[in-house]
Amino acid sequence: MKITVVGLGVIGGSFVKALKGKGYEVYGVDVNVETLREAEKEGCIIKGYVDPHEIIPETDLTIISLYPSLVLDFLRDNTFKKGSIISDAVGIKSYFLEKALSIIPDDVEYISMHPMAGREKKGYAYASKDVFKDANFIVIQHEANKPESIAFMEGFAHEMGFHSVKIMSPYDHDEIISFTSQLPHAIAVSLINSDDEKYDTGKYIGDSFRELTRIANINEDLWSELFLNNKKYLLKSIERFEEKLNVLKDAIREDDEDGLKAQFIESTKRRERL
Amino acid sequence: MKITVVGLGVIGGSFVKALKGKGYEVYGVDVNVETLREAEKEGCIIKGYVDPHEIIPETDLTIISLYPSLVLDFLRDNTFKKGSIISDAVGIKSYFLEKALSIIPDDVEYISMHPMAGREKKGYAYASKDVFKDANFIVIQHEANKPESIAFMEGFAHEMGFHSVKIMSPYDHDEIISFTSQLPHAIAVSLINSDDEKYDTGKYIGDSFRELTRIANINEDLWSELFLNNKKYLLKSIERFEEKLNVLKDAIREDDEDGLKAQFIESTKRRERL
Repeated sequence: MKITVVGLGVIGGSFVKALKGKGYEVYGVDVNVETLREAEKEGCIIKGYVDPHEIIPETDLTIISLYPSLVLDFLRDNTFKKGSIISDAVGIKSYFLEKALSIIPDDVEYISMHPMAGREKKGYAYASKDVFKDANFIVIQHEANKPESIAFMEGFAHEMGFHSVKIMSPYDHDEIISFTSQLPHAIAVSLINSDDEKYDTGKYIGDSFRELTRIANINEDLWSELFLNNKKYLLKSIERFEEKLNVLKDAIREDDEDGLKAQFIESTKRRERL
Repeated sequence: MKITVVGLGVIGGSFVKALKGKGYEVYGVDVNVETLREAEKEGCIIKGYVDPHEIIPETDLTIISLYPSLVLDFLRDNTFKKGSIISDAVGIKSYFLEKALSIIPDDVEYISMHPMAGREKKGYAYASKDVFKDANFIVIQHEANKPESIAFMEGFAHEMGFHSVKIMSPYDHDEIISFTSQLPHAIAVSLINSDDEKYDTGKYIGDSFRELTRIANINEDLWSELFLNNKKYLLKSIERFEEKLNVLKDAIREDDEDGLKAQFIESTKRRERL
């Protein structure tokens, strides 16, 4: 089976590294020639191409690991092998899949995926198969998907080292992701931006502040696109969070020790269950 | 110099481990005999005592690493060596220091400290000198402190491996800590408690959600005491955070891409500076 990974950044690069030695014929497409040579040298790809037209027409599984809008451009600009599977790793799905499906011809199958892994650093140099180790993976299923193709993607994710693989609709995906991924990013950004910088903050932080703000280092083009295209679910998730923060605030204001403890006991129980 | 660490939990235990081989005579006090024997065996303390009265009267520096209310009990129940220094590692300072100073006699000096380090796990088994490596340390200075005692504590913190040592008043401490420590805990608790548990959340999370909720596993007795006794500053910090979250919410609601990006660019700049 011929697999081509398009975009050898931290996720695309981790795909080719995770696929090494798994028995697939893996190729790479990237605008950066040096990245392609590096991946070739490491034996992660058989050959790298700057021009996708040289390899995509013979590829059985194309994984497009680019920014959302660039994935759509790529779908428009390329001719895919009949019967092949096309996939992407875009962070939200419903608005995106609708657009993607309207572009591709009927004789190829589109299966979107979400590897729930990443690094705050960009680029092939930070890619590693360890990025996927013990991580979660979601396969997005829509009406036109064949059950055997979904089953293939499920096994494929496990082969790359993912720990849990779930299959769900693009709508369910976007709802849960608004809570588990987008809300944490909104919180991290708001936390660090709410610093009045009266003190030299870096000298008064522990691990908790470091951890809660790591993802405040955020790609503004990508995340504004993700946020705005998942508006409904994200606003609901933010509002639910605000309600719980208000419960704490009220308890603090009213010296309600039991009320505070109840929230802490609940959060401890939930975190341990996680 | 004779140092006694009272309470060999994760912080107290890390103290004795960090002090090993630094040339001090270190003793330990704990209710758990096995912990004392373990610390003796490791050569981290010369001798361990269940009864503090056997060692505290001859101790030059007593570090009480217990819960806030137990520190006050300890101060009441013990007789300290004339001219000795007493310290604690309680998480907030102004309300606490006032109480402590009202208990101790005039012939001992009280210097509160805040090692900004910890583990989510409790107990001596999780203590390590690595807990303090590259961490921040705050020495709390009040009117009755001698400059040479403050200078000693500053050097002492560096000796234990802390990276940055700052000296500040209990009020400034509580203000900055409401933002860098208490607010992150309030956020983590509210985030995990706002999960409507419609999905099997653990299967749809990445590192960001894991990191943002680690401290939601929280000791309810300790943290309700810390929150309620730092009410004024904590409520202000929560409100400032809510304002910034509202900026994001408004931008999402109004499809204000530039407004969103501006927040992301600011948070990225701040995080990199950290």
